[in-house]
Amino acid sequence: MHKAPSSSSLGPGGLDLSRAFFTPIQDTAPPSSTKRHTKIAVVGVGNVGMAIAQTILTQDLADELALIDAKPDKLRGEMLDLQHAAAFLPRTRISASVDYAVAAGSDLCIVTAGARQIPGESRLNLLQRNVALFRAIVPALARHAPESILLIVSNPVDVLTYVAWKLSGFPSNRVVGSGTNLDSSRFRFLIADHLDVNAQDVQAYIVGEHGDSSVALWSSISVGGVPVLSFLEKQQIPYEKETLEKIHKEVVDCAYEVISLKGYTSWAIGYSVANLARTLLRDQRRIHPVSVLARGFFGIEGGDVFLSLPAQLGRGGVLGVTNVHMTEEEAARLRKSARTILELLSQLDLGI
Amino acid sequence: MHKAPSSSSLGPGGLDLSRAFFTPIQDTAPPSSTKRHTKIAVVGVGNVGMAIAQTILTQDLADELALIDAKPDKLRGEMLDLQHAAAFLPRTRISASVDYAVAAGSDLCIVTAGARQIPGESRLNLLQRNVALFRAIVPALARHAPESILLIVSNPVDVLTYVAWKLSGFPSNRVVGSGTNLDSSRFRFLIADHLDVNAQDVQAYIVGEHGDSSVALWSSISVGGVPVLSFLEKQQIPYEKETLEKIHKEVVDCAYEVISLKGYTSWAIGYSVANLARTLLRDQRRIHPVSVLARGFFGIEGGDVFLSLPAQLGRGGVLGVTNVHMTEEEAARLRKSARTILELLSQLDLGI
Amino acid sequence: MHKAPSSSSLGPGGLDLSRAFFTPIQDTAPPSSTKRHTKIAVVGVGNVGMAIAQTILTQDLADELALIDAKPDKLRGEMLDLQHAAAFLPRTRISASVDYAVAAGSDLCIVTAGARQIPGESRLNLLQRNVALFRAIVPALARHAPESILLIVSNPVDVLTYVAWKLSGFPSNRVVGSGTNLDSSRFRFLIADHLDVNAQDVQAYIVGEHGDSSVALWSSISVGGVPVLSFLEKQQIPYEKETLEKIHKEVVDCAYEVISLKGYTSWAIGYSVANLARTLLRDQRRIHPVSVLARGFFGIEGGDVFLSLPAQLGRGGVLGVTNVHMTEEEAARLRKSARTILELLSQLDLGI
Amino acid sequence: MHKAPSSSSLGPGGLDLSRAFFTPIQDTAPPSSTKRHTKIAVVGVGNVGMAIAQTILTQDLADELALIDAKPDKLRGEMLDLQHAAAFLPRTRISASVDYAVAAGSDLCIVTAGARQIPGESRLNLLQRNVALFRAIVPALARHAPESILLIVSNPVDVLTYVAWKLSGFPSNRVVGSGTNLDSSRFRFLIADHLDVNAQDVQAYIVGEHGDSSVALWSSISVGGVPVLSFLEKQQIPYEKETLEKIHKEVVDCAYEVISLKGYTSWAIGYSVANLARTLLRDQRRIHPVSVLARGFFGIEGGDVFLSLPAQLGRGGVLGVTNVHMTEEEAARLRKSARTILELLSQLDLGI
Repeated sequence: MHKAPSSSSLGPGGLDLSRAFFTPIQDTAPPSSTKRHTKIAVVGVGNVGMAIAQTILTQDLADELALIDAKPDKLRGEMLDLQHAAAFLPRTRISASVDYAVAAGSDLCIVTAGARQIPGESRLNLLQRNVALFRAIVPALARHAPESILLIVSNPVDVLTYVAWKLSGFPSNRVVGSGTNLDSSRFRFLIADHLDVNAQDVQAYIVGEHGDSSVALWSSISVGGVPVLSFLEKQQIPYEKETLEKIHKEVVDCAYEVISLKGYTSWAIGYSVANLARTLLRDQRRIHPVSVLARGFFGIEGGDVFLSLPAQLGRGGVLGVTNVHMTEEEAARLRKSARTILELLSQLDLGI
Repeated sequence: MHKAPSSSSLGPGGLDLSRAFFTPIQDTAPPSSTKRHTKIAVVGVGNVGMAIAQTILTQDLADELALIDAKPDKLRGEMLDLQHAAAFLPRTRISASVDYAVAAGSDLCIVTAGARQIPGESRLNLLQRNVALFRAIVPALARHAPESILLIVSNPVDVLTYVAWKLSGFPSNRVVGSGTNLDSSRFRFLIADHLDVNAQDVQAYIVGEHGDSSVALWSSISVGGVPVLSFLEKQQIPYEKETLEKIHKEVVDCAYEVISLKGYTSWAIGYSVANLARTLLRDQRRIHPVSVLARGFFGIEGGDVFLSLPAQLGRGGVLGVTNVHMTEEEAARLRKSARTILELLSQLDLGI
Repeated sequence: MHKAPSSSSLGPGGLDLSRAFFTPIQDTAPPSSTKRHTKIAVVGVGNVGMAIAQTILTQDLADELALIDAKPDKLRGEMLDLQHAAAFLPRTRISASVDYAVAAGSDLCIVTAGARQIPGESRLNLLQRNVALFRAIVPALARHAPESILLIVSNPVDVLTYVAWKLSGFPSNRVVGSGTNLDSSRFRFLIADHLDVNAQDVQAYIVGEHGDSSVALWSSISVGGVPVLSFLEKQQIPYEKETLEKIHKEVVDCAYEVISLKGYTSWAIGYSVANLARTLLRDQRRIHPVSVLARGFFGIEGGDVFLSLPAQLGRGGVLGVTNVHMTEEEAARLRKSARTILELLSQLDLGI
Repeated sequence: MHKAPSSSSLGPGGLDLSRAFFTPIQDTAPPSSTKRHTKIAVVGVGNVGMAIAQTILTQDLADELALIDAKPDKLRGEMLDLQHAAAFLPRTRISASVDYAVAAGSDLCIVTAGARQIPGESRLNLLQRNVALFRAIVPALARHAPESILLIVSNPVDVLTYVAWKLSGFPSNRVVGSGTNLDSSRFRFLIADHLDVNAQDVQAYIVGEHGDSSVALWSSISVGGVPVLSFLEKQQIPYEKETLEKIHKEVVDCAYEVISLKGYTSWAIGYSVANLARTLLRDQRRIHPVSVLARGFFGIEGGDVFLSLPAQLGRGGVLGVTNVHMTEEEAARLRKSARTILELLSQLDLGI
């Protein structure tokens, strides 16, 4: 395991200065092994993984942060860079290793690692390579952190959350995908920007499959508690379906736009996942649109499939799914996404 | 146990609306009983206890806060008043009861309850009444929260921390008194105010017995890392012992001044104790001048006695005492305080 | 003006130690008088005023906090008690005085002072004594802090916010009453407690007159973006009007309950007002139900009257009122409250 | 100026939905142009600039954040990525432009832009290219934000802070370089890691020139207020000069190590600069080792030169330099660095 450089020594030889500096009081008990502290493991220290790790650190969400990656140099560099900020942050133990043992005892494991598409590669082939990657990651996490919640960020998130669920053997309430949580945040930003209100006063869900075929729940939009669609109706302000679809398209497009402009996305997904980590670990029981086992909801049948639905999250993972109102058309699109993913899953070889 | 009013019902009869609102996903596991969350119990909901409770809540230090007091009305009023702020705070479970069972599983128990002096009552008599009070409090806490750290705030804090240690049967590292942590904070404020610097850049300890006979460690004062006494010497700025003693006297007096002006102290002790709670529960390993088992330090002999010394605190309670430099005169004053307290303790009947 | 004790001196005589400790660099400019910092004045250091002041301090909302009260001893005691916590908080200048000049340059003035009812005293008589009090407070604040926003917390809040508006000569967007912001918070807590969700995920407004005749906007309730009433309808869950009214009654009653149990309310109003202070000073443009000049809204006519409506707040004060949907019955109750208050106002002598 | 995408429209055509949603109250005044809010400009959106921007945003230090860079695509991508997190953050206005007008009215301008070394290029040539870059940046900032504080992060920081001072025409108290603030943080981390204490309890300065020739002030090291060197002496624990130098070398080397491992440094410098921004803008009057006009201190003569010294910072910029104790050897090394930099400066052509 990589540890902080510790060749420093204020005294010569084997002198343990810490012991010279502090003396224990009498009649003390050995520290109990059951002492509670909060530990988060982040797998993958690319732009997304590090934006998540750094936001978690700034927001003081964990007592211990373990970084895992296959590239030891990059990994150690990122660990040291975070550790050097110790004087500006609450004390958090930061460790890093290529060995999954560093995740031992984690309360939450966040997986951001993923294979990159090779030009010309089919979607199924890429997916199969991601499955291979997850076969190296997920069982190892499940072994070292058997009580943890798995939070999958890697794309395609809905498929890979299913894969993680299968490979982990965890109950479904302890496997969540970041799903459309960020899509919903972008949706809220666009609405807030338009109305010049605080995005925190905007409620709006995008559900379903993360990406192009996601479903915007128009009737869920409210601003400061005012349902926007009924407001427009009552004020007799006409609006057209195309207008609504245009906003949804903007949400879908703006992920592509950021990638085309800066090469990747990082900050928003970092805040979004740190926000989920807070709800999960501090048992906030808040409602987030995240990828959960969706079978049985809104008429989704035909097999186990993960899709984003407004779920209440807490220390136990997924506590329940909100019975949000959906139009028949919205539910139909959800079911269509479910069928597409199920079709894809049927072609995957999980090797189990 | 007092609970939040829950006669509210959005649907008629026995309808469980929460179950209508949320549906569990498939294949979930029952929540594990070992799930970690942080719980703090505060005994005594007077001005000091409530300032502590409210600061803990604002600073988001606990997932659960249990209030205990002998007066059920006042207790329920304070609980409701805190609960009504739920919309402005991270979700924290707040409970209250006259029954110590409400403290079950606490990580930290903060005791602020104390008997008030009856006019004409001797110090020893008052103390004996406080012992009687602690006999009702401490064993009950120890029974319901056997793994907790006890943090004693009630005065005379050094004697009562000893009493709590004896009555709890806890190892000494899990029993701490707030001691001179607040005195030191006042000391730092006075120095910072004089130099027009940030009090967080001032290091300065008052140790020993909380109150009139406390000992200011002059050589410990540094501002922004500059040791003040050696600075004065090197700059050939003369200063006299009486000047230093005058500042120390001001620290001692300003507690009395606040009491004479507003009738009690609350805010500063609230922040001071919340600060200790943070170091303890988040394993910050910071150094605080608090009341610990002092036997064997700085020549203190003759029996078990609690006095404030600069101690490193963390999730395990007292991790060690700093080998701070003390002049012979300072150490002599410390030993004199120790003897006075030991003399007092010898007259106490703990009933065990 | 009371200031922190400054008789402390680390060197003898007139030595300015601060100047010995720091040396200015060359070629510096005098500090500009236009340097921006944020200042809040709190008038009245009773339980409500101090809960507000302490929460503002903990949440680091101001660079300077000025306390004002007619009782110099209590005032100085509260100031010192807050100052002694300097080592635990970001540096904030805290001053206190019986002289309103201490509020000079404030960005926000929060008024919590109020006369207490004498047994047997009529409501009008009490109100007239409060007007006399406000005649001593408001013009003085307006003179020393002519660019400030006035936030009135004293009760009856709707009448006194009107009085403050008239006495200040301020434009109406810079005079706000805390109104039903706390009532709405209690409403959200009760709903969240019932559904076991996070109160921050509950949107729900109580508007109108603060107190018994307030109006709960049932159609405004949403949980995690799900409008509750239409949810119940769509799920074909029956509910009755009396059930809803019972919850509203509980909100109204729980203020009385806290007062009967602990003698006053403090913590929840402290958090509620600090929350408003944050929205106003940090230009958060969030929507809060607060007391604003309501003439012209929802058919309120007959004169200038302040009542709580869902208002968007920011650095400019009241930015606008949300065109929330109200049933005809709700609007009628609002207008009835308006008429009652207007009737009362017509009997008041503001002496201007 | 790049702005957030605003083609979104919930209603057709020219409908201004915001105006339909909110109605102003009567008798309002136009918003005053003197309303105070805090604005920070960050020049350069590379890894360092973005780590700073994101940390400032997370820590809620500004009401407005302006990003400036010469590459419009990268710039817009970074702006959008931050904006998409609006739902998770307090409302902050984020703008971005290649035009320095976007910095108008900033309170603090942070410059991270810098030319990269071309293989084989001489240090002087690289520096001259950086001067050319600063000639495009600094006068433009000084024109659009004439009251701002300039905080220079680009390397070589001491030379470029001097250049920025000259090009801005600002008084020297309003031009600061991040200097050895991060070196000192790394120093504190290494000591804290060795002693297993909280780095926030460690005081230790590295001063002088940022980089290889920086000077560690050994006598400034204290842990929890205990001066470490005198502690070792009093405990008769021997230590040798080489041991101390080894730790200093580790600090210098670990910057190179991070760069060799991950290609650049970002997180620690981000936290370090955000920490300076907080002290400056919230007038915290804390002491930081930063690059300031050092002429006249510790025998530094021969011309105007910027070097890191422990300086007290606040809303006015550099408030003063601490008269920290330095051994003659330490001061001699400082003067040697000053002479080297002065020599370099004499060869530079600032074009003014």
